[in-house]
Amino acid sequence: MPEQSPLDLPEGDPFGPHNLPYGVFSLPGSPDGGETRRVGVRLGAHVLDAGAAAHALGSPYASLLAQPTLNPLLAAGPQTWSDVRRALTAWVTVPAHREAVRPLFHSLADVTLHLPFDVADYVDFYASEHHATNLGRLFRPDSEPLLPNWKHLPVGYHGRAGTVVVSGTDVIRPSGQRKAPSATEPTFGPSAKLDIEAEVGFVVGAPSELGSAVPLSSFRDHVFGLCLLNDWSARDIQPWEYVPLGPFVAKSFATSVSAWITPLEALDHARVAPPARDVAVLPYLDDSAEDEPGGYDLRITVSLNGEVISEPPFAGMYWTGAQMLTHMTVGGASLRPGDLYGSGTISGPEPHMRGSLIELTWNGAEPLELPTGKRTFLEDGDEITLTAWAPGPDGIRVGLGEVTGRIAPARTTD
Amino acid sequence: MPEQSPLDLPEGDPFGPHNLPYGVFSLPGSPDGGETRRVGVRLGAHVLDAGAAAHALGSPYASLLAQPTLNPLLAAGPQTWSDVRRALTAWVTVPAHREAVRPLFHSLADVTLHLPFDVADYVDFYASEHHATNLGRLFRPDSEPLLPNWKHLPVGYHGRAGTVVVSGTDVIRPSGQRKAPSATEPTFGPSAKLDIEAEVGFVVGAPSELGSAVPLSSFRDHVFGLCLLNDWSARDIQPWEYVPLGPFVAKSFATSVSAWITPLEALDHARVAPPARDVAVLPYLDDSAEDEPGGYDLRITVSLNGEVISEPPFAGMYWTGAQMLTHMTVGGASLRPGDLYGSGTISGPEPHMRGSLIELTWNGAEPLELPTGKRTFLEDGDEITLTAWAPGPDGIRVGLGEVTGRIAPARTTD
Repeated sequence: MPEQSPLDLPEGDPFGPHNLPYGVFSLPGSPDGGETRRVGVRLGAHVLDAGAAAHALGSPYASLLAQPTLNPLLAAGPQTWSDVRRALTAWVTVPAHREAVRPLFHSLADVTLHLPFDVADYVDFYASEHHATNLGRLFRPDSEPLLPNWKHLPVGYHGRAGTVVVSGTDVIRPSGQRKAPSATEPTFGPSAKLDIEAEVGFVVGAPSELGSAVPLSSFRDHVFGLCLLNDWSARDIQPWEYVPLGPFVAKSFATSVSAWITPLEALDHARVAPPARDVAVLPYLDDSAEDEPGGYDLRITVSLNGEVISEPPFAGMYWTGAQMLTHMTVGGASLRPGDLYGSGTISGPEPHMRGSLIELTWNGAEPLELPTGKRTFLEDGDEITLTAWAPGPDGIRVGLGEVTGRIAPARTTD
Repeated sequence: MPEQSPLDLPEGDPFGPHNLPYGVFSLPGSPDGGETRRVGVRLGAHVLDAGAAAHALGSPYASLLAQPTLNPLLAAGPQTWSDVRRALTAWVTVPAHREAVRPLFHSLADVTLHLPFDVADYVDFYASEHHATNLGRLFRPDSEPLLPNWKHLPVGYHGRAGTVVVSGTDVIRPSGQRKAPSATEPTFGPSAKLDIEAEVGFVVGAPSELGSAVPLSSFRDHVFGLCLLNDWSARDIQPWEYVPLGPFVAKSFATSVSAWITPLEALDHARVAPPARDVAVLPYLDDSAEDEPGGYDLRITVSLNGEVISEPPFAGMYWTGAQMLTHMTVGGASLRPGDLYGSGTISGPEPHMRGSLIELTWNGAEPLELPTGKRTFLEDGDEITLTAWAPGPDGIRVGLGEVTGRIAPARTTD
């Protein structure tokens, strides 16, 4: 039992009872077998053992929450997500319940956080107009930066689900083939242009049927919540390999996600209209008549070795999470609990709002000047951290869990 | 108990004791609860309940085989794969064992076959030079058909694991965006160019560590076996969406695999040298000094509504399964039991060896004349079946399980 209970948080704490993100934790070295993974809910700098709380209070959700991953909760669907959230809110706010759950909190300093769900399929989109424009200028300098399809559909591709790792996992520098435009032959070695991509991840809960598209209006029936996501990328491997079937080795070595999944219901006050679109879209992607705005006002900060290097604004994304979901399923692809899709790099209109080093340093031509030295791309030992918050009720912020990772040296060098 | 036991197969049956592929089956409507999925091994036109056989014979592999998927066996690694295969071979050939397992066979006509393993990540390659050349000519008529990277690395991309379906599953025609080159705007509707891709799938068993590449010589330590695979593709959706991040909606709606996984050990007589490569590769992909040849001589037949339309030869693939595996992991991507990777469409040098309709009909310009009518691309109700065999011991063929699928009408039409 912690000395200062999270039940007595100062008002306005971004991880207060208005937030309640979900994760999975264990208690290393616990003599009572606490190394078992179990679902936790964050309150302040503590985590509530959600299954134990449900059991202590005789809740019908005890078996759903006493699990090693969030997948059973994800699969349970939106009515259960609401009901469980209402129950959790009561447990940490109603006096009688508070006393029952008070002993079931653990300090974040004492627990190990794990990948909160088994990732089914992982898809990455490319939904920021500023990012796509910047990359187009860098990769295809002699053409229009945005390709003709970009404003007609949210461009996306499948990534590697098996290399999604939780925040705090070291990222081993990848090796691979690269060829400079001036070279005649490719060479092999550790990536010299290891980069980040600051993104938001959408966590799918409820499945859908093979052969049927999920309409825009069903976004909240399927998507459980959001996380932060860093899609590590090797910028020297990517241009050589990516034609004609897309990125592969350059992006499949690691994707980091935050340990906390913020339920959509905690972000109701953060909903905003997406930017005006200047090209009409086909009816299945037209969100102009939707009841609720499709954007989310998440304010993201990217730090390199503790120094802020970028502040990408998620509110300005051209395509919304609902549009990405609908496009992903329009051909009949089904959804499974644990599907994860990323927004693509979030970049805003100003230089300090760019969500990748290739944009921030203009492919290395304009190094960042940091207290720890100049940086073009990542060096071994560098640590990147994404944090974010969103507007919540009564002016209180909703904190998103950070995603951090440190670069370890390449293992394969020849 | 069947009337004619598979234990008395005529010599030379392609599913004899030299083959023994693995699948997963259930007994629909069985009064004894037989709807449970369990691992089966095919012999002739029958399937042996492998877990029940192991139990009856007191085998140590009973718990590994009495499972609803092949994943535990896949994860067990190459020594166990060999040991289990040796045991199974004894059960169907040694007289005393034969009597014990004789009652544990079911006719294929009486069982339902299921997806034999939970697919972890699905990757599709592009390893046939003839196919890549044909597609390059069709999609990029004004350029060199092979892109500069093609002979330096096996081009591949991640597909959707959640829409891999077992042979016999109907394939619902996808809808999506397409834009003719002459049109100014995209339109939406059911694909009018629904196609097949005749491929071989490699089923990964033993996992590998994140951050470490799997060398060519470790192919058999990780890959459990082969299946047939049909990567259904919407050729009108693909060209509009695939730049710059690769195919997405056009290929994520369904991928069919055969119900039987043929272990690599059953294919030892089918190993052949890959074709001579005319471009030197980097050392990690150089297989010229490997102990065993990397190709597999699989003779594939593609039928449309029962008529043979193509006979693609797998022996001629430019890149081998080992090279694909090594390239997939060279950046440090880890393997999980149940990872599946496809070879890409198999096309040979002659027109009747092309593994897709877009090649066979030259994008619809040269329709196939069939007894059931002209065909450019697939029509609703069409059924496509891939079958294959490989050279086995003593001149006996090794049969691969078929993969078949029928086209059902689109559900989303506007």
